[in-house]
Amino acid sequence: MSDFRIEHDSMGEVKVPAEAKWRAQTQRAVENFPISGQGIEHANIRALGHIKAAAAKVNTELGVIPEEYGTAIREAALEVAEGKWNDEFPIDVFQTGSGTSSNMNTNEVVASIAGERSGMPVHPNDHVNASQSSNDVYPSSLHIAAVSAVVEELIPALRHLEGALRAKAGEFATVVKSGRTHLMDATPVTLGQEFAGYAAQVRNGVERLEATLPRVAELPLGGTAVGTGINTPEGFAAKVISEIASTTGLPLTEARDHFEAQGARDALVELSGQLRTVAVGYVKIANDIRWMGSGPSTGLAEIRLPDLQPGSSIMPGKVNPVLCEAMLQVSSQVVGNDAAVSFGGSSGNFELNVQLPMIGRNVLESIRLLANVSQVFADRCVAGIEADEERCSTYAESSPSIVTPLNRYIGYEEAAKVAKQSLAERKTIREVVLERGYIAAGKLTEAQLDEALNVLRMTNSQ
Amino acid sequence: MSDFRIEHDSMGEVKVPAEAKWRAQTQRAVENFPISGQGIEHANIRALGHIKAAAAKVNTELGVIPEEYGTAIREAALEVAEGKWNDEFPIDVFQTGSGTSSNMNTNEVVASIAGERSGMPVHPNDHVNASQSSNDVYPSSLHIAAVSAVVEELIPALRHLEGALRAKAGEFATVVKSGRTHLMDATPVTLGQEFAGYAAQVRNGVERLEATLPRVAELPLGGTAVGTGINTPEGFAAKVISEIASTTGLPLTEARDHFEAQGARDALVELSGQLRTVAVGYVKIANDIRWMGSGPSTGLAEIRLPDLQPGSSIMPGKVNPVLCEAMLQVSSQVVGNDAAVSFGGSSGNFELNVQLPMIGRNVLESIRLLANVSQVFADRCVAGIEADEERCSTYAESSPSIVTPLNRYIGYEEAAKVAKQSLAERKTIREVVLERGYIAAGKLTEAQLDEALNVLRMTNSQ
Amino acid sequence: MSDFRIEHDSMGEVKVPAEAKWRAQTQRAVENFPISGQGIEHANIRALGHIKAAAAKVNTELGVIPEEYGTAIREAALEVAEGKWNDEFPIDVFQTGSGTSSNMNTNEVVASIAGERSGMPVHPNDHVNASQSSNDVYPSSLHIAAVSAVVEELIPALRHLEGALRAKAGEFATVVKSGRTHLMDATPVTLGQEFAGYAAQVRNGVERLEATLPRVAELPLGGTAVGTGINTPEGFAAKVISEIASTTGLPLTEARDHFEAQGARDALVELSGQLRTVAVGYVKIANDIRWMGSGPSTGLAEIRLPDLQPGSSIMPGKVNPVLCEAMLQVSSQVVGNDAAVSFGGSSGNFELNVQLPMIGRNVLESIRLLANVSQVFADRCVAGIEADEERCSTYAESSPSIVTPLNRYIGYEEAAKVAKQSLAERKTIREVVLERGYIAAGKLTEAQLDEALNVLRMTNSQ
Amino acid sequence: MSDFRIEHDSMGEVKVPAEAKWRAQTQRAVENFPISGQGIEHANIRALGHIKAAAAKVNTELGVIPEEYGTAIREAALEVAEGKWNDEFPIDVFQTGSGTSSNMNTNEVVASIAGERSGMPVHPNDHVNASQSSNDVYPSSLHIAAVSAVVEELIPALRHLEGALRAKAGEFATVVKSGRTHLMDATPVTLGQEFAGYAAQVRNGVERLEATLPRVAELPLGGTAVGTGINTPEGFAAKVISEIASTTGLPLTEARDHFEAQGARDALVELSGQLRTVAVGYVKIANDIRWMGSGPSTGLAEIRLPDLQPGSSIMPGKVNPVLCEAMLQVSSQVVGNDAAVSFGGSSGNFELNVQLPMIGRNVLESIRLLANVSQVFADRCVAGIEADEERCSTYAESSPSIVTPLNRYIGYEEAAKVAKQSLAERKTIREVVLERGYIAAGKLTEAQLDEALNVLRMTNSQ
Repeated sequence: MSDFRIEHDSMGEVKVPAEAKWRAQTQRAVENFPISGQGIEHANIRALGHIKAAAAKVNTELGVIPEEYGTAIREAALEVAEGKWNDEFPIDVFQTGSGTSSNMNTNEVVASIAGERSGMPVHPNDHVNASQSSNDVYPSSLHIAAVSAVVEELIPALRHLEGALRAKAGEFATVVKSGRTHLMDATPVTLGQEFAGYAAQVRNGVERLEATLPRVAELPLGGTAVGTGINTPEGFAAKVISEIASTTGLPLTEARDHFEAQGARDALVELSGQLRTVAVGYVKIANDIRWMGSGPSTGLAEIRLPDLQPGSSIMPGKVNPVLCEAMLQVSSQVVGNDAAVSFGGSSGNFELNVQLPMIGRNVLESIRLLANVSQVFADRCVAGIEADEERCSTYAESSPSIVTPLNRYIGYEEAAKVAKQSLAERKTIREVVLERGYIAAGKLTEAQLDEALNVLRMTNSQ
Repeated sequence: MSDFRIEHDSMGEVKVPAEAKWRAQTQRAVENFPISGQGIEHANIRALGHIKAAAAKVNTELGVIPEEYGTAIREAALEVAEGKWNDEFPIDVFQTGSGTSSNMNTNEVVASIAGERSGMPVHPNDHVNASQSSNDVYPSSLHIAAVSAVVEELIPALRHLEGALRAKAGEFATVVKSGRTHLMDATPVTLGQEFAGYAAQVRNGVERLEATLPRVAELPLGGTAVGTGINTPEGFAAKVISEIASTTGLPLTEARDHFEAQGARDALVELSGQLRTVAVGYVKIANDIRWMGSGPSTGLAEIRLPDLQPGSSIMPGKVNPVLCEAMLQVSSQVVGNDAAVSFGGSSGNFELNVQLPMIGRNVLESIRLLANVSQVFADRCVAGIEADEERCSTYAESSPSIVTPLNRYIGYEEAAKVAKQSLAERKTIREVVLERGYIAAGKLTEAQLDEALNVLRMTNSQ
Repeated sequence: MSDFRIEHDSMGEVKVPAEAKWRAQTQRAVENFPISGQGIEHANIRALGHIKAAAAKVNTELGVIPEEYGTAIREAALEVAEGKWNDEFPIDVFQTGSGTSSNMNTNEVVASIAGERSGMPVHPNDHVNASQSSNDVYPSSLHIAAVSAVVEELIPALRHLEGALRAKAGEFATVVKSGRTHLMDATPVTLGQEFAGYAAQVRNGVERLEATLPRVAELPLGGTAVGTGINTPEGFAAKVISEIASTTGLPLTEARDHFEAQGARDALVELSGQLRTVAVGYVKIANDIRWMGSGPSTGLAEIRLPDLQPGSSIMPGKVNPVLCEAMLQVSSQVVGNDAAVSFGGSSGNFELNVQLPMIGRNVLESIRLLANVSQVFADRCVAGIEADEERCSTYAESSPSIVTPLNRYIGYEEAAKVAKQSLAERKTIREVVLERGYIAAGKLTEAQLDEALNVLRMTNSQ
Repeated sequence: MSDFRIEHDSMGEVKVPAEAKWRAQTQRAVENFPISGQGIEHANIRALGHIKAAAAKVNTELGVIPEEYGTAIREAALEVAEGKWNDEFPIDVFQTGSGTSSNMNTNEVVASIAGERSGMPVHPNDHVNASQSSNDVYPSSLHIAAVSAVVEELIPALRHLEGALRAKAGEFATVVKSGRTHLMDATPVTLGQEFAGYAAQVRNGVERLEATLPRVAELPLGGTAVGTGINTPEGFAAKVISEIASTTGLPLTEARDHFEAQGARDALVELSGQLRTVAVGYVKIANDIRWMGSGPSTGLAEIRLPDLQPGSSIMPGKVNPVLCEAMLQVSSQVVGNDAAVSFGGSSGNFELNVQLPMIGRNVLESIRLLANVSQVFADRCVAGIEADEERCSTYAESSPSIVTPLNRYIGYEEAAKVAKQSLAERKTIREVVLERGYIAAGKLTEAQLDEALNVLRMTNSQ
């Protein structure tokens, strides 16, 4: 009994754990949503804290709340933003679709802390939430959290991985190997060209995210209940967003259209699509690298990956490309998270989409997973890759497609005969060309043949 | 310094937290995969415990390990199955694609506990993992966990929800309302017929899951490294699966083809598809119910949902259909999880799919979310729904589509004229019929008109 | 001018091509939906024809329409079912969400043909559509078409492919090769075991479809406008479904709940999920086969696929696994179609889902694509596969994982040392075992070593 | 017999229809891929024609092929680009994953036409395909087709729809209605604000596409077989792309990294994601509009949509929001197509992704569907929407949420009591405020109450 206290809200009384900073509405939500056992992302709590702190400041400036209330609220809210009170956010992420419960959780926690310290009766709605509504605050918190995580975590991690790949591209610049198209032997490439291609994919990922940010950075704040800004003083939106941008250093802006900004969540769907595109690119990179490292005896074995841990509980000595696999699994998860975002993102009606916490969970998790896996993949996998130059070279020389440069001398159809004879009789392309008498027939000179069959030259890499 | 001890494995030495039950391989994996911060599902740990316990018993019977080792391992493993050692499973779910790290985590924890108690040098690989490989153990653990969660949690929750819906179907059996097709007024139905339809959707969900179970219940156990059963004594597979089935009470069977069972994860993809179908059905149910409850003044307002919590931080007195929204969000998540499973499920190569932990995470989470939301939706939403019979009746009478039964008397095209005139002139269908003289013209009698326009009769519900 | 005639419907007059069998409502829909340029699937038209024919018969029996009308309608409708009038179905598949336009198209074409032949004024609504509504007819037509295509086309094609794979499993029963897990060398398997695994995947696909059919085979027919069966005589539903089942030979049944059957399309979502699972399985099969055939010089080259066409416009002599690629592309399409079905399938409201033609397009296309690609893949790819037994054998002997059977003699950790030394010093496992003195130390005898290193024995395939 | 002629290629002889312009390789592909019955998109053929025409010109300039060959090829290729020879492209879209068959189809048709006219022996590979490979040509053709369709069709269609929505936003600028959040009554908005929000969504769609174009506009042309540009003369890539850009007027550029450009298809995955985002936005717009038009008697009935066609085959006089439904179905299809693109887009290996025709099919279809439905939705639906101002006004006044502006006078909790009493006692907010004595208590004046309860003022729209 003594472990609880009684709180009330507009619906009546509720028993709340005695020590909790949260109050009645949070408690109702805890009881209403025993679903996943997982709360909202910490990045989301942080953003809510920033909004409350900025709102308190602007509300004070505009005379909506007294200055001493504003100061107390601001200080408490900044602590929430710093993550000091994460344990006071017990509500399941699968909750009311507007995130009202998490907004009220923030209001209640901030009110309690501010009230305890100042001794003033700080009210969650009338003071902490003044000039705001869950319907503008909560989606804004998702956008702020997403912009923050993209700018501060994901893009740096992508650049880090791009750098690791480019370093390998340089290191492998003259390692000639056989290209493969349709998985079949093709004309030569360098291993460096392949790694530079991966680096380009990752760089493009950065561009994709940056191209999307302007729309994600638009905040609905100031629209309050339905986008009209009801109960918000003139100038509140611009000031509060400017304050958050200043505190966080993020390029945040006010929504150009507050009805689009509250009724639709298209910008998060777009961002999720770009995260998905990065993930799809990672599938290619991780698959190529693990296939190149396959073997050691019955695979391609063009490269060696770092040994990170024993690979098998039964097969002794086996080592597996585990970080490629982690990356592939993250990619699958991001594809799945994106499908969830797209599905829920389409379900807005009129002035609100009621799948906000779910959308936030998936977008923010995808960013986090991609950032973390990019970092560890760069450091523990890519950085330690070594080429088996000899194996690569053998492949380059043995691919029947090195006949391709002879097209210009003997035509595509004769060249096809050379390639097929080479395979059937297990002879080199050079041997077959000589044997079939093209030089004797004046189709090309021996010097031209030498030049034509130079595999490094075929890569145009120098 | 003193907080760590040194462990070793086939790759060398590792520093492990002094008190940890896990050993070197677990520790390596903890360090290799700092990705999501989330471990594998508890249901997965439980299943791993059951496998180790059963394997210990059968290994003893078949003379693979000494009886005293078998007994010690079995006891420790059953504690793992009971969830007593969940905290000793620190590895990220995004890890090696085979789940080897989590299998070794289990082997190490069980070896430590069994060793500490018995004083014998229990080896994670040679004793705990005897006759097993991660490649048969880990996917088996996912199948066992999935079957268990479906049979023991999800199906009962679906039946509970079906029951709640059927109770309402009975309660609303004579509440006549307007049907709606294309969102437009249609011929009458009863509210009970609608709720019975939802109940049928949920019942079909049970059938869908049951139809899929035979394939999910097939276990790869006994196939070890690649499906051939290398290093496994004759009869091991059948005995160990029978033991697990007996301990858990689940309808588990040995894979009919051990190569399919290890190379492909199609059965989990199939199960995920069925979970997705249940979720898609929930979208319909949750949307219908929240639309019926929309208003109170500017919506359909045919029913009232229970008030669970204040709905808005700015609009006083607002109450929202929050459990419908939680259900919709769970549904989106299940759709997304399914896309992840499908994406990763397609990526098997040769004797293994290396996205197992990701697949497990998503399938098991989907089951858990659906089970929990079904329960709470039944209890806190459906059970408290009340009909506004008067509003429903008014709708039924005002739908212009109640002209439909007149087709047989005056034909479709004349009936269309009646409906349009009724709308244009804001008259009832009866008034227009009388005015247009169909009775005078002998098309129908007044008694036939009465019968034709009886809205409850139109529902064929009695 | 003379190329058109004037038709009318309940909304007024419309200009229709002079020779068209269709009438006003079809023409309106042609003009309203210039979207994809693609009509509904032929299988859908066929099913609509069967429904109209059966309805005409039952309507006659039950006295709803005169016998001579019934006979004329039935004959015309059966011709539609035979595909004779496919060109008279010009409406885009992206149309009204109920498929009303296509139902009316059928009604109008049947009315025109029946009317022209009989000289009677056959009315599309009052006679052809009697006792029916688009809302029960059109979804029923999708279910009938889906059941038909699954039973008559897809399942036979799957069985055909399963047979082709099993034939190869027999042929390759003693071709030993290295297993691969994580793409890395593992313990031996036979090529036959792998192909038997693929055959098992395909067989399971048949089971998946069959497990789903009972729910897909439930028809909403008889529910008319909203599921209540308004304007339908007693017994109509049972009779008309029985008639269609009898004519088509398909296991069709009446919906157990007509509100579920019209309000939800869960059964098609479920079927789509199973088609998706088959497709996911195909990705594994096609990828394994094309990787096994990769090379000829720089890939795995364990098998040879039939040469079907020149593979490159620039690289002479190149031949590619084109049918594997076609299969992979079909699989991607089926995954995509499934996402469309799931997305649209969730959008039902009250008594109708208004994405029926889209759902039908995707489900029926998926069935068609899978059936066709299964057939051609079996005949033009699988049937012609040849093994390179020598290469496979070399791989089996060179995999360091063949050390695995030594675990029982020397323990997992010593065995790991053997495997690593073997790789590092490019010696065989046997050489290293002898060199490290395990036999001298009495760990095992030479005979045990011979038996332990027998790769065919390791496959347990005999 | 006489209906066929014999052609040959590097694999031997083939029977080809006597009149066909295509040759051996096309014919092989026709026979190898009887899968969907559907060819590649016309936009794809057009792009292939442009590439061949430009290549012929540049090959001539660079001395690769004789000028008279170049001229003949160019003329023929431009006719292909104009769509004159679409019937000569009989190959199924589910074909070799590189699109080699369609590239060779183009080469053969152009060679035949050019050869017939000029009398010269124009060779498909050596002349038409000179300096090219399917591996750079075919993906380039997809990018060109996509850029063209986005720039010339989709963006104009989006702008057209945006315009139609903005026109309505102006027209409805003073139509006050109740906002709705969670489907429940909220504070007032104007109908114009809602339509402006939709317009903003569509405008953002244009921005999304434009932000993506720079990467889609990068062409792999010049990379030939594997990205190295083997068999391509110095300067070919830049010249041929410049020529295509000039002929088509599209902002095409050379790939910054030719290995990324051939190995990955990320840019099409990205574009597909943006198309998906547009589609997701359309779901919101179409749903809002059809819900606003729901009724006429039992729905929201705030607006009237144009009557386009009879809505029901059984319910006379029913008219449905069919273009909203078409738009919703297109949206589902685009979501599905995107999943297919994402799935296949992840499957690249080394120097090629072998799902190109499938990717092209889905991206190009999505663009086409969105462009067409945007146009028809604007013209036949949006343009004809009329508001029911009276109904809207009644809703605005009856929403209990209009109590919200009183928060500043009486606090959130008192305001909640007012709202609840208003609903329970079916009184207006004004009546309850007066009754509860807030004016008497000096909380606010009657003038303040008047101002606070002015619904148009609450919208901040003036």
